[in-house]
Amino acid sequence: MNYDCIIVGGGIAGITASIYLKNANKKVLLIEKGTMGGILNKVSTIKNYPGFKEIAGPDLAFNLYEQAKVNEIEIVLDTVIDIENKDNLNKVILKDKEYTCKYLILATGKEARKLGLPNEDKLVGHGVSYCALCDANFYKGKDVCVIGAGDSALLESLYLANICRSVTILNKYPKFKGQEGMLKDLLKHDNVKILYNSLTTSLKEEDERLVGITYQQDSKDKELKTDAIFVYIGSTPNILSGLDLELDGKYLKVDENKKTNLDNIYAVGDVISKDLYQLVGAANDGMIAATSIIKRLNKE
Amino acid sequence: MNYDCIIVGGGIAGITASIYLKNANKKVLLIEKGTMGGILNKVSTIKNYPGFKEIAGPDLAFNLYEQAKVNEIEIVLDTVIDIENKDNLNKVILKDKEYTCKYLILATGKEARKLGLPNEDKLVGHGVSYCALCDANFYKGKDVCVIGAGDSALLESLYLANICRSVTILNKYPKFKGQEGMLKDLLKHDNVKILYNSLTTSLKEEDERLVGITYQQDSKDKELKTDAIFVYIGSTPNILSGLDLELDGKYLKVDENKKTNLDNIYAVGDVISKDLYQLVGAANDGMIAATSIIKRLNKE
Repeated sequence: MNYDCIIVGGGIAGITASIYLKNANKKVLLIEKGTMGGILNKVSTIKNYPGFKEIAGPDLAFNLYEQAKVNEIEIVLDTVIDIENKDNLNKVILKDKEYTCKYLILATGKEARKLGLPNEDKLVGHGVSYCALCDANFYKGKDVCVIGAGDSALLESLYLANICRSVTILNKYPKFKGQEGMLKDLLKHDNVKILYNSLTTSLKEEDERLVGITYQQDSKDKELKTDAIFVYIGSTPNILSGLDLELDGKYLKVDENKKTNLDNIYAVGDVISKDLYQLVGAANDGMIAATSIIKRLNKE
Repeated sequence: MNYDCIIVGGGIAGITASIYLKNANKKVLLIEKGTMGGILNKVSTIKNYPGFKEIAGPDLAFNLYEQAKVNEIEIVLDTVIDIENKDNLNKVILKDKEYTCKYLILATGKEARKLGLPNEDKLVGHGVSYCALCDANFYKGKDVCVIGAGDSALLESLYLANICRSVTILNKYPKFKGQEGMLKDLLKHDNVKILYNSLTTSLKEEDERLVGITYQQDSKDKELKTDAIFVYIGSTPNILSGLDLELDGKYLKVDENKKTNLDNIYAVGDVISKDLYQLVGAANDGMIAATSIIKRLNKE
């Protein structure tokens, strides 16, 4: 066996797990396919992570990477192609090599579904957001739009309605897929407006900031000025193939120790099914999975 | 009503909760009886909080305080004398004033029980520790003692046995109060030694560092050289009087949203009953309680 534990994914959840395992003297490997720090590298400013009054996403990502280095975490920057789980062992297969480990932690994250509009990527952090809880505060007293038709769109609109001057929800369907109760709660707010059958078709920018959108409603093209759009049209967890893992919707199902249905595979952070996807929650997941694995390794 | 939510206790759990509530535009007050940052102010070096490769406890405490200030959290430095919970309202009573709020978050923390030896306080961070998970790494390959007779002493000894050269447990009783299974696991380790009927009687220091202890075993005074002692003789959560809160042992019992048995009172951090008392876990508690309260306030 090469490692006590291999962690796939070098975001805050994976790095936290690696540090706890390493500090307990376990042999641990962290595999990251892109940039260490994961999705943090795409976040402009973070104000709600405890310990930093304000930190740029990439700076926090770098801090975490440095913390991993100081703790002498073995890191491989490569893509996991396949995983085999049998005989109480995990085999992690990369393009040119493979590793074995007793325990595996999946920390592969998720990606927000995008609208797919041309200038969308460029405007992230400049009027385009996929996280109200992260960014709402930048639009206090301003006019914002929420794009979506599900529970997340309703929940986050409710959140925004208490912060922003107005919230206009663009739902491309004639009704919501979300919970009735939430819609009812939302309609109590005077500053919320809902546009049904409304498909967002373009993002209007000025000086590299979003200033409005166009949308199609009942076959008519319309315009709307807005300070920000919050896009909630779903997200996609990054699920590795090759494992018979139980899902809760699209996300990995885990127990209170962050263990999946497979006894020696854990999952943490944005790839698992949970109520809130927050940085501090992802870090907490990593800590919990690692300490659970440490306890088991110490008993063996 | 003065506030949507009052938080009692300005450690990482309470501050995190306050930031989430404030960012959701709620009227929030934080009351701290001592120093903002709470127990962090007593911790020498933190290496396992995600985001800092190494940070002194008081520095992290100060960061959190700064973060609270930047978020314009209203802070009162005063001692809560009593709390009244009735008619769907909480009244928080200080010496010279009182406040009312809809929701209350108790983040009052806990204090480790000390041995009560003369130079103990002075040697904290210099060979005396109350948290193996926090400090074990400083004693990698060294000889340490654990003082205690319960589950925590056993669990943390197991943790230390995988890191330190030797672990000597001083149990003042003739047997352990902890789980049989854990003791069995512990005895598998060659580097663990148990001294029963052994009461630690003094701490020996040189150059302001712990270098050994004396203990009394079967009415004889004995000496032992050691690089560190980890004290696990229990801890005391700071439970405010005046409320009919359900306990789990000595700690507050909460549900998955960190709600106590009283519908508008939550509790977070070290004052609640849980498996692991870690900084990142306390921060996570604060986030969870705050978001649960935000959801409820938004529905009202």
